[in-house]
Amino acid sequence: MEPVKIGLLGLGTVGGGTVSVLTGNAEEIARRAGREIRIAHAAARDYDASRIPGLERIDTIGDDAFAVVDDPDIDIVIELIGGYSPARELVLKAIENGKHVVTANKALIALHGNEIFAAAQAKGVTVAFEAAVAGGIPIIKALREGLAANHVEWIAGIINGTGNFILTEMRDKGRAFAEVLAEAQQLGYAEADPTFDVEGIDAAHKLTILGSLAFGIPLQFDKTFTEGISKIEPQDVAYAAEFGYRIKHLGIARRTAAGIELRVHPTLIPQRRLIANVDGVMNAVLVKCDAVGPTLYYGAGAGALPTASAVVADVIDIARALTSDPNNRVPHLAFQPDELTDTPVLPIEAVETAYYLRLTALDRSGVMAAIAGILGEEGISIEAIKQKEPGEGDTHVSLIMLTHRVTEGDMNRAMARIEALEAVQGPVARIRMESLEG
Amino acid sequence: MEPVKIGLLGLGTVGGGTVSVLTGNAEEIARRAGREIRIAHAAARDYDASRIPGLERIDTIGDDAFAVVDDPDIDIVIELIGGYSPARELVLKAIENGKHVVTANKALIALHGNEIFAAAQAKGVTVAFEAAVAGGIPIIKALREGLAANHVEWIAGIINGTGNFILTEMRDKGRAFAEVLAEAQQLGYAEADPTFDVEGIDAAHKLTILGSLAFGIPLQFDKTFTEGISKIEPQDVAYAAEFGYRIKHLGIARRTAAGIELRVHPTLIPQRRLIANVDGVMNAVLVKCDAVGPTLYYGAGAGALPTASAVVADVIDIARALTSDPNNRVPHLAFQPDELTDTPVLPIEAVETAYYLRLTALDRSGVMAAIAGILGEEGISIEAIKQKEPGEGDTHVSLIMLTHRVTEGDMNRAMARIEALEAVQGPVARIRMESLEG
Repeated sequence: MEPVKIGLLGLGTVGGGTVSVLTGNAEEIARRAGREIRIAHAAARDYDASRIPGLERIDTIGDDAFAVVDDPDIDIVIELIGGYSPARELVLKAIENGKHVVTANKALIALHGNEIFAAAQAKGVTVAFEAAVAGGIPIIKALREGLAANHVEWIAGIINGTGNFILTEMRDKGRAFAEVLAEAQQLGYAEADPTFDVEGIDAAHKLTILGSLAFGIPLQFDKTFTEGISKIEPQDVAYAAEFGYRIKHLGIARRTAAGIELRVHPTLIPQRRLIANVDGVMNAVLVKCDAVGPTLYYGAGAGALPTASAVVADVIDIARALTSDPNNRVPHLAFQPDELTDTPVLPIEAVETAYYLRLTALDRSGVMAAIAGILGEEGISIEAIKQKEPGEGDTHVSLIMLTHRVTEGDMNRAMARIEALEAVQGPVARIRMESLEG
Repeated sequence: MEPVKIGLLGLGTVGGGTVSVLTGNAEEIARRAGREIRIAHAAARDYDASRIPGLERIDTIGDDAFAVVDDPDIDIVIELIGGYSPARELVLKAIENGKHVVTANKALIALHGNEIFAAAQAKGVTVAFEAAVAGGIPIIKALREGLAANHVEWIAGIINGTGNFILTEMRDKGRAFAEVLAEAQQLGYAEADPTFDVEGIDAAHKLTILGSLAFGIPLQFDKTFTEGISKIEPQDVAYAAEFGYRIKHLGIARRTAAGIELRVHPTLIPQRRLIANVDGVMNAVLVKCDAVGPTLYYGAGAGALPTASAVVADVIDIARALTSDPNNRVPHLAFQPDELTDTPVLPIEAVETAYYLRLTALDRSGVMAAIAGILGEEGISIEAIKQKEPGEGDTHVSLIMLTHRVTEGDMNRAMARIEALEAVQGPVARIRMESLEG
């Protein structure tokens, strides 16, 4: 059988890893795919040839990405440039040229996926993106195929390794956010500009994709609520532990009667849950379905070889089905393109969760009663409360409360009233809480 | 588009669950599959109609399974009868009639899979079996597709929920095997004849399938080493914990330079591993690959609805690709049929692991030296040793040792020599040990 010819855009970390995997495991991959998979044409601006084993087996390497997507010999284009432009133009051109596309570009899919999949559908080609979410974990495939019999109820994922590394170090060593972030940057786990990771934007890109696959809705990154971990303090990590919880930066997608929740934020979860024990840079996605119940998928969420594992799996999928009728393939977003629904994505104010609250108040009688009174008036019931005794000479105490479930809108009102109390100092720290019950 | 017409064999636990899922989630499934999936013809000897919601939506229910596989209207036959015969004959007849087959029958696939897949290949139909391993966890799909870029190094799975429930209860409550087994039988987690579960035969069926998918070898159930959990004593569970280990009944498949290991046995694993924290009836499979590293898949390994989730996912896979060219599909055993290798499966004597040993010896000087001497002469180094002080009036002590890695053959020789020592009472208890390092 003819080899499948790959056009590769980008020879950076993931590009280099993809070359390594495709060449290093070439024989085993051919045994699985049923044909040889050859990188016929690659394009990259600058790259370190000495760090990419197998580079010599690429037929042609140039610096013009558009020449690759226009190369009539190419069957599948792998886009590993990242960013929005020219990645978007390249992917659309590849589709226009009738080529299948594999990409690891979560930002591109989250923001331009609707346009890209519509173009692919019209042209009868596949755009695969397993590597865009949770690196090497085959979670896209699980949601799109493995769990296809189910009504998905909710998803909760640790889908940013940098954030999970920072929170794990804060917990294990009692260290502060900024200090651990600096270390993560030195270790290469965090970028020089860490905003995308620690403020949750990267996780929000991934959650947008997971939510679409789970619920059959178009990609709507702009409606995904995003809150980072930069305001988590060591004392919150410690207090959470006292209550039996861990703080994880979760992407949560949930279907409710009112609509769909898409939200990324720090979350207290019971420490006995398996996902609460996913530490360091590792990722995990917990999916709750009506038939199968909870299932969890764990593995490396980033890195050259783990991400390449997902990229190449997509290539093999396409190679195995290369001659299949375009109308009889697995749909891009799990649901058939004409079966996506316009179920609304809820604003964060309409989302219901439990809460962890921490505030500083004057150590005098009546303060706790006033706070409890406000919560009661706003319909918020308290599950647990702890007062931390003041240090010597300190006139203030810390109050930590866990509440039952309430909408964010109600909590916002209650918090504003509490913060307005004369005895309360500074803002109320608030972290959402989920039981993640199977 | 024409509906896909299902012939369903069996309306027991999983058959009933499959009817519930296919009818209860019919609308969402059609949105994913791109066409309606209808149960056109079912056959069952006896069943409880009142316990199967959706049964009224089956077009025809009879008692002749062969009439279903011969029904010209049927596109896909779902075999949920279990056992070897007539399941084997029915599946082969369905294939002969050009129908795709979905089965949850692990025993059938493990023992007759080679014959069945060869027939399916010749006829150009698909035989899917996601439900045969680890219930609702999409582990077959992960190995066959999601991880297809990788060289699989090893797999370690908790793939029998009954055994895991028993070991979890023994650990949490310090109870004895027989007592927990009786409770599991009352709860319906264990069969009246628990042999298949507690002696590891069920797990060995599943491991045979996983090993074939991972390494591209034919199914070889007869070469899978199987040891049950019935000899695990509460004291072993407690001693393991003192060393920081938990005892899990694992199916392990490993590729070594000499060949392939396929073995099911109780195993000490470090308690800090995520898989060591998979408790109760839940299943999990840890897969170590060269590119992606370790990934883990967790969920319900049995039960009507979880198993049905996997059965229906297979049906949707087939429905989505119904018109695809038979030569361009995902191969049954992950590797193309002419690409399976005859890499030998190793006898257990050639398998290398670390060991936990427990023995009872006279409490007198020189005994420990004699035992350590034998181990040294057989080339076995000791990682840790503990002597449990004798009770008052007791002349014997318990010795617990953890060894470094050694072949089973060498360990057998050392154990025979130790058991022959006059000061040693009764047999040496031996449990294999794995670090499961990523």
